[in-house]
Amino acid sequence: MKYYPVHSGYPSYARVNRVIESAFAEHGRGNVQMPPKVYVTFGKTGDFRTMPAYLPAAGIAGVKIVNVHPNNRAHGLPTVMALTVIIDVDTGLPTALINATDLTALRTGAAGAVAARHLSPRRSSISLGLIGAGRQAAAQVEAMAAAFTLDEVRVWSRNEKTAAALAARYADYNARPVSIERACDSDVLAATTPSREPLVMAGWVHEGTHINAIGADAPGKQELDPAILLRAEVFVDDREQAIHSGEVNVPVRTGFYDPAMIAGTLGEVVIGKKGRSSPDAITVFDSTGLAIQDLAIASLVLEDGEGCELPFP
Amino acid sequence: MKYYPVHSGYPSYARVNRVIESAFAEHGRGNVQMPPKVYVTFGKTGDFRTMPAYLPAAGIAGVKIVNVHPNNRAHGLPTVMALTVIIDVDTGLPTALINATDLTALRTGAAGAVAARHLSPRRSSISLGLIGAGRQAAAQVEAMAAAFTLDEVRVWSRNEKTAAALAARYADYNARPVSIERACDSDVLAATTPSREPLVMAGWVHEGTHINAIGADAPGKQELDPAILLRAEVFVDDREQAIHSGEVNVPVRTGFYDPAMIAGTLGEVVIGKKGRSSPDAITVFDSTGLAIQDLAIASLVLEDGEGCELPFP
Repeated sequence: MKYYPVHSGYPSYARVNRVIESAFAEHGRGNVQMPPKVYVTFGKTGDFRTMPAYLPAAGIAGVKIVNVHPNNRAHGLPTVMALTVIIDVDTGLPTALINATDLTALRTGAAGAVAARHLSPRRSSISLGLIGAGRQAAAQVEAMAAAFTLDEVRVWSRNEKTAAALAARYADYNARPVSIERACDSDVLAATTPSREPLVMAGWVHEGTHINAIGADAPGKQELDPAILLRAEVFVDDREQAIHSGEVNVPVRTGFYDPAMIAGTLGEVVIGKKGRSSPDAITVFDSTGLAIQDLAIASLVLEDGEGCELPFP
Repeated sequence: MKYYPVHSGYPSYARVNRVIESAFAEHGRGNVQMPPKVYVTFGKTGDFRTMPAYLPAAGIAGVKIVNVHPNNRAHGLPTVMALTVIIDVDTGLPTALINATDLTALRTGAAGAVAARHLSPRRSSISLGLIGAGRQAAAQVEAMAAAFTLDEVRVWSRNEKTAAALAARYADYNARPVSIERACDSDVLAATTPSREPLVMAGWVHEGTHINAIGADAPGKQELDPAILLRAEVFVDDREQAIHSGEVNVPVRTGFYDPAMIAGTLGEVVIGKKGRSSPDAITVFDSTGLAIQDLAIASLVLEDGEGCELPFP
């Protein structure tokens, strides 16, 4: 059994996008095992989620264990930390333990790039709008940069300093802080905030835009004006997870949005079974995060691998 | 984050029985979080199970990951291997990784001793009958020896050599290989085989016997003549798990045994809410294994702790 602290030498987004796309394709073909995430909650302190899965095509299986503790800054720790345990398919032996804290953003960024690649009507160069300018926004920029030429990156954040900092970091992609209306007026829009109120208004989004709705990952969270969902073609990573905790969760709960309107899964899109109906449609990818994405990125860490040996069994 | 290989210095059964009893008491009071085990299967090769839980009274939370690969002998590996990840309640930080391969038998042995302690009408000395003479049978002997004076241990196994070897190992407890009928004619009987056909016949079990049904842990497995279940007072560790994969699973599936007849849980017994109705009753403890047992024994490993430090996050 090896332990991979992975504090450096992350795989390139070109590779990450590729394995994440393959994982979604297998999901679209129904060739994966992925029971629903299991939650254990610590009252108001936080929770942890257990995400087991098996991706036969990659010959990899395992479990990601990931917490959410919003007050961790006081303890000098990240809000979200993750550990992935890899289980050998032939023997059940735990063969690897991977520090997946930083990998979680990578696999989410890659899902956004894969969704944009398959759902945006634009094929080569795009303008990218960002709502939110944190770690997940950076992951969207980097994953998109491996999939498209970025003409311009339009950054909006409630916190102007954060927006300016992210824009400065991606000056090479012509990034700059803008108004929220201007950010929404982009070819591809990625919303990555923890908002519980809609931020992206229907009137600001033009035809043909593809939107990655990344932020909503728990009941009560939402970033998009629900009117966008009615007008758009909405694709999810996993139907149940999306209804439970994704962008559609609030409008589904209030009865505003009927889950039967969900156009399909990203997996079905990747294998060509589903897709946008016309270049003018607005498409939304509602991302909640799949255990198979964690396995896909773990497979790259194992390939690159500089783990330390631990005695087991 | 520390890694505990635990190849030596196991906690004594006196301590294990104590923490396992406390964990069942908390379960009986409804003070634990323990979502159902999640299975991922590798066709006919094997499977792994993910068992998350939180035991607030002990301030401990985590996940046991455990496989079952019946053909592992060919790979020079145990059939069942287990790893427990401990999660800090206040921050969600994974604080410990524990090799739980050998601990799984300890916590199952202790559950048997706790059940016998609370369900056998005998208080001090007992004769112990064993059906099966493997690792789990040895755990039953050792856990019982920490809870009772063992007058005699009567060992039966399909494999006579295995029975003789176990008997020799526990000569101090007056252990000897016997016929299956003689083994069944004991104060406390522990069945620990992987059988799919009943081995323990109703006519062989006398009034007042307590039976630990340990072996059945998957759909299709059973060790007891179902007629025993109709006649006995059956207590389970967890109702859903028992119906799914415990001793009662086959008779429930065939309609022979009505789950409404289950007399209660071991947790309810430990807190005095339920119990045997008379000294003459036959009682059965249907053990499937709870994630809180794994946390309880993990708490002892952490107390004794000789872990090696790993960098995380």
